[in-house]
Amino acid sequence: MKTFVGILMGSESDLPVMQKAADALTELGVASRVAVASAHRSPDLVDRLVKDWSAEGAGVFIAGAGAAAHLAGVVASKTVKPVIGVPIGSSKLNGLDALLSTAQMPPGIPVAAVAVDGARNAGILAAQILGTADAALGRRLQEARKKAADEIEARHLGKEKSPK
Amino acid sequence: MKTFVGILMGSESDLPVMQKAADALTELGVASRVAVASAHRSPDLVDRLVKDWSAEGAGVFIAGAGAAAHLAGVVASKTVKPVIGVPIGSSKLNGLDALLSTAQMPPGIPVAAVAVDGARNAGILAAQILGTADAALGRRLQEARKKAADEIEARHLGKEKSPK
Amino acid sequence: MKTFVGILMGSESDLPVMQKAADALTELGVASRVAVASAHRSPDLVDRLVKDWSAEGAGVFIAGAGAAAHLAGVVASKTVKPVIGVPIGSSKLNGLDALLSTAQMPPGIPVAAVAVDGARNAGILAAQILGTADAALGRRLQEARKKAADEIEARHLGKEKSPK
Amino acid sequence: MKTFVGILMGSESDLPVMQKAADALTELGVASRVAVASAHRSPDLVDRLVKDWSAEGAGVFIAGAGAAAHLAGVVASKTVKPVIGVPIGSSKLNGLDALLSTAQMPPGIPVAAVAVDGARNAGILAAQILGTADAALGRRLQEARKKAADEIEARHLGKEKSPK
Amino acid sequence: MKTFVGILMGSESDLPVMQKAADALTELGVASRVAVASAHRSPDLVDRLVKDWSAEGAGVFIAGAGAAAHLAGVVASKTVKPVIGVPIGSSKLNGLDALLSTAQMPPGIPVAAVAVDGARNAGILAAQILGTADAALGRRLQEARKKAADEIEARHLGKEKSPK
Amino acid sequence: MKTFVGILMGSESDLPVMQKAADALTELGVASRVAVASAHRSPDLVDRLVKDWSAEGAGVFIAGAGAAAHLAGVVASKTVKPVIGVPIGSSKLNGLDALLSTAQMPPGIPVAAVAVDGARNAGILAAQILGTADAALGRRLQEARKKAADEIEARHLGKEKSPK
Amino acid sequence: MKTFVGILMGSESDLPVMQKAADALTELGVASRVAVASAHRSPDLVDRLVKDWSAEGAGVFIAGAGAAAHLAGVVASKTVKPVIGVPIGSSKLNGLDALLSTAQMPPGIPVAAVAVDGARNAGILAAQILGTADAALGRRLQEARKKAADEIEARHLGKEKSPK
Amino acid sequence: MKTFVGILMGSESDLPVMQKAADALTELGVASRVAVASAHRSPDLVDRLVKDWSAEGAGVFIAGAGAAAHLAGVVASKTVKPVIGVPIGSSKLNGLDALLSTAQMPPGIPVAAVAVDGARNAGILAAQILGTADAALGRRLQEARKKAADEIEARHLGKEKSPK
Repeated sequence: MKTFVGILMGSESDLPVMQKAADALTELGVASRVAVASAHRSPDLVDRLVKDWSAEGAGVFIAGAGAAAHLAGVVASKTVKPVIGVPIGSSKLNGLDALLSTAQMPPGIPVAAVAVDGARNAGILAAQILGTADAALGRRLQEARKKAADEIEARHLGKEKSPK
Repeated sequence: MKTFVGILMGSESDLPVMQKAADALTELGVASRVAVASAHRSPDLVDRLVKDWSAEGAGVFIAGAGAAAHLAGVVASKTVKPVIGVPIGSSKLNGLDALLSTAQMPPGIPVAAVAVDGARNAGILAAQILGTADAALGRRLQEARKKAADEIEARHLGKEKSPK
Repeated sequence: MKTFVGILMGSESDLPVMQKAADALTELGVASRVAVASAHRSPDLVDRLVKDWSAEGAGVFIAGAGAAAHLAGVVASKTVKPVIGVPIGSSKLNGLDALLSTAQMPPGIPVAAVAVDGARNAGILAAQILGTADAALGRRLQEARKKAADEIEARHLGKEKSPK
Repeated sequence: MKTFVGILMGSESDLPVMQKAADALTELGVASRVAVASAHRSPDLVDRLVKDWSAEGAGVFIAGAGAAAHLAGVVASKTVKPVIGVPIGSSKLNGLDALLSTAQMPPGIPVAAVAVDGARNAGILAAQILGTADAALGRRLQEARKKAADEIEARHLGKEKSPK
Repeated sequence: MKTFVGILMGSESDLPVMQKAADALTELGVASRVAVASAHRSPDLVDRLVKDWSAEGAGVFIAGAGAAAHLAGVVASKTVKPVIGVPIGSSKLNGLDALLSTAQMPPGIPVAAVAVDGARNAGILAAQILGTADAALGRRLQEARKKAADEIEARHLGKEKSPK
Repeated sequence: MKTFVGILMGSESDLPVMQKAADALTELGVASRVAVASAHRSPDLVDRLVKDWSAEGAGVFIAGAGAAAHLAGVVASKTVKPVIGVPIGSSKLNGLDALLSTAQMPPGIPVAAVAVDGARNAGILAAQILGTADAALGRRLQEARKKAADEIEARHLGKEKSPK
Repeated sequence: MKTFVGILMGSESDLPVMQKAADALTELGVASRVAVASAHRSPDLVDRLVKDWSAEGAGVFIAGAGAAAHLAGVVASKTVKPVIGVPIGSSKLNGLDALLSTAQMPPGIPVAAVAVDGARNAGILAAQILGTADAALGRRLQEARKKAADEIEARHLGKEKSPK
Repeated sequence: MKTFVGILMGSESDLPVMQKAADALTELGVASRVAVASAHRSPDLVDRLVKDWSAEGAGVFIAGAGAAAHLAGVVASKTVKPVIGVPIGSSKLNGLDALLSTAQMPPGIPVAAVAVDGARNAGILAAQILGTADAALGRRLQEARKKAADEIEARHLGKEKSPK
């Protein structure tokens, strides 16, 4: 059974943001599944997906939602796998509501909150979690990190200039 | 089957605030039941209480929670009865987190949010809801309203004074 | 006398948002009336509408306003029917002002606040309130809820895919 | 008919803050009247006080309230006299709610907002308003201003010290 | 010497907002003067304008500024005439910075804050202040108020409709 | 080499909060090390600890800090192991500053933010992360979860009462 | 003429906070003068102090104030010496008002804002500024920095422990 | 060795804002160097630049970053030269996150925060700092200040008009 990351989002309109989580995982060679399932409008689907995906090899869950963003908390209440919450800045309040709804979880049921619209980091964090027990993935993460730093260095060297 | 108001709260530490909802209902002659059930730590208990209480005559639900206050939203996702949410100001952020988590519900699943720590108003609102189809309760609400206004007027008349 | 929901808003510019409350009620087979009446600029009109509509069968009021959104509170001070407040995000502060002005009501006079611009939920909540004593409406609410969940499930099934 | 400043507050618990408005007016030789009258719980009393006090010589109104602080706005909707609003920091949200509810009035009905708990400034501002047409009061305001500055200067001179 | 309202703003870019204060005054038959003078970049000009305009008949000052909006406070520190502050929502923070900088004045030096970008209300408030001692202006204010309410009523009557 | 969780905090005054992370790990049978090392005042110590602990078997890092809480971000910039950030509510701004400084990380370098002062959840989350590859730990997590839910249920059953 | 740092504060009640700026400077061997002078209540004293102290050798100014904290901005409008602003968290809004009033200065007149109540850092920053042209002071700053890091390291070494 | 100002930013997308710092310095005749170096993605480059530029004559550092803006704090942890932080309003939260992450530094390691997107003021402040020991630069700063005030005065004089 191949381990994968289960990515849920509360609404199809969240997909442009949440796709970045799946893309980051693909870049790092980690499998993922994506589904739309609302904690409020389709709670039974959320239940079933968490149960089924857990049985089928989900190692980490990522849940993205906006406004009163309960999806990550609901998923976290149904599994002891790590759950990463992506607050989505889709409401008039620009994501402050989603950030507080995602991060301020009560003792006992953790959610790992990333930045507002920070789906790419959610993907990388999920890979880091799976990388704690997967040395090859750990190396790919280090290579990706080094490559990003090298690019910044390379662009810098091309531009270094003396005081003007 | 006697109609009652089902009052849930996420933690026993919320009881001093939430008791005010039950007290307001008692004053207005409305039955209520109270239970502690966390959306995150005991989701199955929440499920069962919403189902059982609905079958036993709950006409309105009141749910109080602090921080990432998901309880009202979770209850609302499982019933089409009106659900009133009481954001509790128990976290360092003074209830702004709970207010946004309670009020900013997505289209389709409403929660009726009252003020931070506004459990007394939650009780009165639940009575107003049941009063839409209970003329005697409607009259009791009007009497309570009038009595409160009269008291303010009476205290005022005793104090009216000319410019000093 | 047919029960209806009275929908008020503080300004004609609020209509595109508030129309969603009327639309949700129409979908659910609940009658409504709509009027523009400002708590500040036309307080007498607000007074008269609350009085007249109450006499003519209003079972619930919905009031939408932006900025220092007092309309719902003013309506609530004149009736013991349930009053739902819709904070409208029309000011530079994106509705945080309207949300706090609507939700933070003092003990004794409740307002049921929904999300910023959450007029659709205000309509559904008003139907839920009337549905507490109208079994047919209760069933329509359950059907609408189920249909929405089924649509999400159906879209999901069409897209389920194995890990990529 | 002697001109006076009408001071209203939404709750007796606001009196320790609002007394500072009356005290500032007394220091400046301006008459005032004080009453407790809630915009929400006793709207008729507010109506009557605004009407009666206007007829009896109120030149300016001061209204203090906390949370969803509607009192100043309600008074302003019933008079074209200047209305000063004092947001009171009595809720868990520390007065941010009251400040936004007081200051963010819609076009047409102004309220002059002062700081959270800024009742002393409300009193001084009311005196400044009456001082625009009362030369003696204008002089008293200037003397009070000068005296305050002189005291700061005097304390300063006693403490001036060279670099340590 | 004709009484007028002195309108200051911190930057020429504030003019589209602040013009509404002058327009409201013109509609109400009150004279005004307008100048751009920054509390920070041209403090001497602010000084001189407050002094000169006071000598030439300014009865009220209006000061509009954005961000760390100090202009109204600086003007208020130099006169005992009433000073109205207009917080302008020109920064990334949408005027919350300007509102707090304008409203939160320390005891002794009041500023009358209106809403973010609320220049029209600043003009009306200035007229209300001058109207406390100018019966004709007071009547014009009442007529304008009544006319606005009548227009809302008239639009309403044309639209009244029975439940749909 | 035994895997452990490395717990860092910016100041000794953070220890009462951060101890809860270590305690949760101990309860779950996970080893941990604790150190005080400020991202700003002792950056070299932070560097060395991240390097040494990584070599000695740290599988996850937890970093707690208040105000401009940079510690978690700095740790995350030096490792591809998962880093959990605990915003500490020690400043006048009650932890809103620390929450935003911890959660709003830029793309590429994730931090898993928990609630303000949410150190217990940080400990549980670290255990969940290590539990993705440690079946025994996964079972202990499930047992702890079930036990907490059972306790809530048990307390509930003792209190169930019919409507009063 | 010996260079010194001029420390101003808006109110004597700010002294317990602001004393920390003077103390930090004393520790670093930098002279300072301290005065209470309100931007609003004693603007002439502020003017005179900025002028006199500049003539007497002030190299940097530090200004601390709460609420609508204008003092640093007013000082900055009267000098081209660097001005450091200390937002003081003395109002109900916990210093968010003072922080925005201090930091959000318009283009042309900078203020260097430190943290809410961050007077100690204001003192160190003033020393760093004077240290740009004073090699001995620069060395003292480096020694103080190193000593603080060494203390943290020393405390750490005494506590290093293996996983428990 | 010519003294210069070292300008760093966390991302190339910050350049349009940060260029204003370099431009202000050029106008004032102060040399600067500009580089992109992320505190999180390229911490070694930040280290090296702070070390190299310090050796080559950097007298002041300016660091601009958005969101969890750690760059200024990281630079400040590696030098005792003055560090100016520019919070960049690039995230959904409009720069409130960056402002708090930049300004709320802990005791011992100061950062001089300017306004959100306030890079021009960062440049002027850096010049003021170098001007404390460079009389010619001090004079240029005074001339620039006077010229800006004169322009406002000149535009004003051309527009002075009597009451309309």
